[in-house]
Amino acid sequence: MNSKNALLSASAIVEVPFQDCDPMQVVWHGNYARYLEEGRRALLKKIDYDYLEMQASGYVWPIVDMRLKYIESATFSQTIRIDAYLKEYESRMKIDYVISDATSTNVLTKAYTIQVAVDLQTKEMQFETPNVFRKRLMQCLEE
Amino acid sequence: MNSKNALLSASAIVEVPFQDCDPMQVVWHGNYARYLEEGRRALLKKIDYDYLEMQASGYVWPIVDMRLKYIESATFSQTIRIDAYLKEYESRMKIDYVISDATSTNVLTKAYTIQVAVDLQTKEMQFETPNVFRKRLMQCLEE
Amino acid sequence: MNSKNALLSASAIVEVPFQDCDPMQVVWHGNYARYLEEGRRALLKKIDYDYLEMQASGYVWPIVDMRLKYIESATFSQTIRIDAYLKEYESRMKIDYVISDATSTNVLTKAYTIQVAVDLQTKEMQFETPNVFRKRLMQCLEE
Amino acid sequence: MNSKNALLSASAIVEVPFQDCDPMQVVWHGNYARYLEEGRRALLKKIDYDYLEMQASGYVWPIVDMRLKYIESATFSQTIRIDAYLKEYESRMKIDYVISDATSTNVLTKAYTIQVAVDLQTKEMQFETPNVFRKRLMQCLEE
Repeated sequence: MNSKNALLSASAIVEVPFQDCDPMQVVWHGNYARYLEEGRRALLKKIDYDYLEMQASGYVWPIVDMRLKYIESATFSQTIRIDAYLKEYESRMKIDYVISDATSTNVLTKAYTIQVAVDLQTKEMQFETPNVFRKRLMQCLEE
Repeated sequence: MNSKNALLSASAIVEVPFQDCDPMQVVWHGNYARYLEEGRRALLKKIDYDYLEMQASGYVWPIVDMRLKYIESATFSQTIRIDAYLKEYESRMKIDYVISDATSTNVLTKAYTIQVAVDLQTKEMQFETPNVFRKRLMQCLEE
Repeated sequence: MNSKNALLSASAIVEVPFQDCDPMQVVWHGNYARYLEEGRRALLKKIDYDYLEMQASGYVWPIVDMRLKYIESATFSQTIRIDAYLKEYESRMKIDYVISDATSTNVLTKAYTIQVAVDLQTKEMQFETPNVFRKRLMQCLEE
Repeated sequence: MNSKNALLSASAIVEVPFQDCDPMQVVWHGNYARYLEEGRRALLKKIDYDYLEMQASGYVWPIVDMRLKYIESATFSQTIRIDAYLKEYESRMKIDYVISDATSTNVLTKAYTIQVAVDLQTKEMQFETPNVFRKRLMQCLEE
């Protein structure tokens, strides 16, 4: 769950909405998955391979593993920054995340998600990343 | 938004989860749509016409109008009861809801939703309720 | 639920997140309350009277009535615009909303919310808008 | 993330709601945190130490670590069972979870959460579990 040796990174900014916060006045721990989704969206957009592109290419990429370590709580109205780092792509897609206060850069949460490609027709899990993803990633890295 | 002249009714019980509550220590107003969904699910189950049955019958029933009047706040851990009343079905499905404290029966929220049938193939909105729904409702009312 | 005779307006932009969409491939109707919250936040920020300011001033403003009319469905990745219009403030705060496609300006949803001030100490509902809100609104309108 | 050597266990049943499912027709991965909450609630109720009791006793117990391994997807209307197992309590509270199909008992998801006690007055993290929790747990285990 760190930024070292990342192949690619992207970031998103979120202003914490009221309804994401719980009676303890902080973001409910389960809602951070929403913020990871924003970071992942920014990363996949860079590769030009968002969920709609994935489906069009014949694959879905379900999350098979997610871990979150909560260091400091985010609160209502706080502007947070989600940095997403592509760490693995050859057999599965592993993304590391760092969520921090957008102003102070204090780290609030660290996380990772692991996704695998599933063929939409055969429903079979792929043990190697489909060529479509490799190509787009290579194009993106060359630019 | 009342129980009078309902053709059919059903109810569901929900114990308010922590994450549905906001920093004001009450259920965030937008989360009541989740509770209406529970009441509607119980009602449609009675008619043997849940969302999966709807799709299998060739229709979806999007909500086109929803109104909620908030009288008293629900809080974490409170056991609430959602009563759903079928009020119209001939050209559209109108359901009224009363959410109350399961113990004291104090009314917390009143609401309604209006749904219309859309043909899955033609994507056209139906101005009369499809026969499949009428038949199931009649069967249910006869029993 | 329209923009006519609004005292003040503000807008917010949202790119529809994946998790707000349901198995029908459209935003689940209950999730639009999240988008209204973004429009309302932009409006209250203009008046310099967000939820934290409200609390500091001794009041909370629960929503007592909300209505949504769904015209067209929003879908994953669509960029939507939420326009919020302040329509009443003297005895209660009524806000009208128009949610539209940010590019085509096609209207997707119309809505309103009504909020009333509640004194944090006495827990009593206020039948006149507290002076703190009037003053901030007047300052904002003069600018 | 297993049931072995658990000090105490409890279970909850959830019928997967429509709005928890995403355009891939399965529960969005982030929504499983809602189901863990139901399992945890059942477990803490057994110890007579829910969130309200925690606060009354002078502590909050934020989640500092959460991991989920997704094996099979849950779908709309499926009845799932969440088993929660108390695995550690001396310096922190570690709970393991197994989410399975309530009928077939097929395992869908495995997870754990780690919580630590924070003193509400001093805001200090506790490195030993407060006596109030130990006492309630012991009472529960003796029964």
